[in-house]
Amino acid sequence: MTDLVIRDVRPFGGDAVDVLVHDDLIAGIAAGLNAPPGAAIEHGHNALLLPGLVEGHTHLDKTLWGGSWYRNEIGPTRNDRIENERAFRRDGSHDAATRSLALARAYIAHGTTRMRTHADIDTEIGLRHVHATMRTRETLAGAIEMQIVAFPQSGLACRPGTEDLMDAALREGADAVGGIDPCAVDRDPVRQVDALFRLAERHGKPIDIHLHEPGEMGAFSLDLILERTAALSMRGMVTISHGFCLGSIADAERDALLARMALWDVRIATTAPASSPVPPFRVCRAAGVTVYGGNDGVRDTWTPYAKPDMLDRAMHIGLRNALRRDDELDWALECVTSAAAVGCGFERYGLAVGCRADLVLLEAETVAEAIVSAPRRRLVVSAGKVTARDGVLLL
Amino acid sequence: MTDLVIRDVRPFGGDAVDVLVHDDLIAGIAAGLNAPPGAAIEHGHNALLLPGLVEGHTHLDKTLWGGSWYRNEIGPTRNDRIENERAFRRDGSHDAATRSLALARAYIAHGTTRMRTHADIDTEIGLRHVHATMRTRETLAGAIEMQIVAFPQSGLACRPGTEDLMDAALREGADAVGGIDPCAVDRDPVRQVDALFRLAERHGKPIDIHLHEPGEMGAFSLDLILERTAALSMRGMVTISHGFCLGSIADAERDALLARMALWDVRIATTAPASSPVPPFRVCRAAGVTVYGGNDGVRDTWTPYAKPDMLDRAMHIGLRNALRRDDELDWALECVTSAAAVGCGFERYGLAVGCRADLVLLEAETVAEAIVSAPRRRLVVSAGKVTARDGVLLL
Repeated sequence: MTDLVIRDVRPFGGDAVDVLVHDDLIAGIAAGLNAPPGAAIEHGHNALLLPGLVEGHTHLDKTLWGGSWYRNEIGPTRNDRIENERAFRRDGSHDAATRSLALARAYIAHGTTRMRTHADIDTEIGLRHVHATMRTRETLAGAIEMQIVAFPQSGLACRPGTEDLMDAALREGADAVGGIDPCAVDRDPVRQVDALFRLAERHGKPIDIHLHEPGEMGAFSLDLILERTAALSMRGMVTISHGFCLGSIADAERDALLARMALWDVRIATTAPASSPVPPFRVCRAAGVTVYGGNDGVRDTWTPYAKPDMLDRAMHIGLRNALRRDDELDWALECVTSAAAVGCGFERYGLAVGCRADLVLLEAETVAEAIVSAPRRRLVVSAGKVTARDGVLLL
Repeated sequence: MTDLVIRDVRPFGGDAVDVLVHDDLIAGIAAGLNAPPGAAIEHGHNALLLPGLVEGHTHLDKTLWGGSWYRNEIGPTRNDRIENERAFRRDGSHDAATRSLALARAYIAHGTTRMRTHADIDTEIGLRHVHATMRTRETLAGAIEMQIVAFPQSGLACRPGTEDLMDAALREGADAVGGIDPCAVDRDPVRQVDALFRLAERHGKPIDIHLHEPGEMGAFSLDLILERTAALSMRGMVTISHGFCLGSIADAERDALLARMALWDVRIATTAPASSPVPPFRVCRAAGVTVYGGNDGVRDTWTPYAKPDMLDRAMHIGLRNALRRDDELDWALECVTSAAAVGCGFERYGLAVGCRADLVLLEAETVAEAIVSAPRRRLVVSAGKVTARDGVLLL
């Protein structure tokens, strides 16, 4: 039984309080808390206090984080990037376990305590990336809670054998059923989405499908997904990642899709890329659709960009959607905290008694400043234990 | 007469060399240079070497940098922001000299050695912001070369007296004639652009006009500007800042405007905002139009965003235009180095013998890594003198 008292911190930038942590839970939040005998004491020095940050969509298994610079000379299409990645892997030098561990550690140092990561599955690599990600999850158990999505990056219906591999991954402990562009990548949309829902039903797991398809093509795929979500009553069990089509179809059609998404609590995970149409944040929010954030790939063969810092992603969500007011930047923070916890189904989340003691102390005056300034993380607490101090991981 | 030798640095990530600085100029770049007797020696430890970064468009006079957090509760339109700023100033607490100095110092610490900054002029504040910016320029003379644009933020034709104030600012040492949205803000486009060209001719100074106007309205203003640029043979003397219209008109109309811009060497300064249409970088570049980068406002009443770091701006330019390949990220770097020096008319710029010794040493393997990773600036040299070390200003 261990107690920890963190003195003089400002939850979400409000008035200073103390926080009592008992084992892995928040046991008290109030000014002038009495420390139990033997409790460890941390002085917050008036730091901004946030709940542990949540990464809602990344690809730990693909990252090159911690290695020497990868020179990107790839063609311009998504299929160029998929094919390049497959070729890159064939030489066998990519160590998904080592790289995913390095990146996950960097996430924790930046205050992330929960994460959903997609692990590639295809008929060439089989479950190698799933197993590598699972090793990282075991190594970091207690420091970061990790969901693994069984993700058919190269297609499902178009590569026979993939569905069986996904089935095996879910039996072995993958947390969600992934999918990708049923028309554009798989070229047989009904066959893919039927397979996804079959796997989800069989294993009682949620679905999280990459939907990059633009305009009417994406809207058609989304319609197929919503049809099955309703038919199987899978309320709150489906996430649309990216959903670019929602940023490029007619308003009336978009609003009709959003109304169905709200009805069935189908969520959107967004990276808010600056160079693509995106689901319009204000409109989705007003329609009652949960929108949360993710970095997508961090420094891999697809992209040189992104940082293992969810406040940086909140900033990009704010920039993409022209969120300038302080109250709007609170929404951007929700995308990488509470909304992401709801979206992924992480439990006991937040800054309240009874929540898991996942805490970040930051050098910032307000939430808005924390988002725009990439502030130093003075302290990270994961499930009641100090895991990082001043940006340095203690694991 | 002072000499400085910087050992073991990699220009643009190439092979390691030494750099000899004599007074304020680069006097040699080669491996194994002999240091003149009495020369100061700096060890680069294989750092990436770039020329001093160039800020092509900012507003030092508006920033709140270094103060307590400004809570933004402003309405959604550009005119809301203009009116809010005017009201904010009326209480008299904004000290443009102190704030602009704080922000300019932060720019230098991040390796910026040349800058173009717009200073507000209107009939309420007169030349107060111009004078405040000039004080900062004097204070930092030798550490950063600063151009000041006489900028009629609240309109020119619509506020009688503004043209006289701009005339006075140019007589007192402002370097360029600013303008803003001749239709949308001034509501009398010919009167504004005629005034701008009249001031430019009288003082022999370039024009740099904010053109936020979207679509056909912006294209009309741009047409008026190009017409006068040609009539007065002002080749290489005009910059269009923002130029959002070039991202939202028909391709054929856009290409016709770009061809005229290339013919008269009319440049584009872009912040590459994620939430607006922007001049398409690849298309502009292919058309032979110089595109360079600027942060626009950094943490002011308009926006909480932006950092006094031109590599961060290069990253946003890359993200907005989907520049992922290493060779494409070289273009993003050009936007905040050589293209910005050309665009603003800064002389003796670059990493070559005879150029002014403005140098940045960074902890990065490649140019691309420098752009995406916000690396530590080991050393900044401004006109031959060390001005910052490990991010700490020595002024």
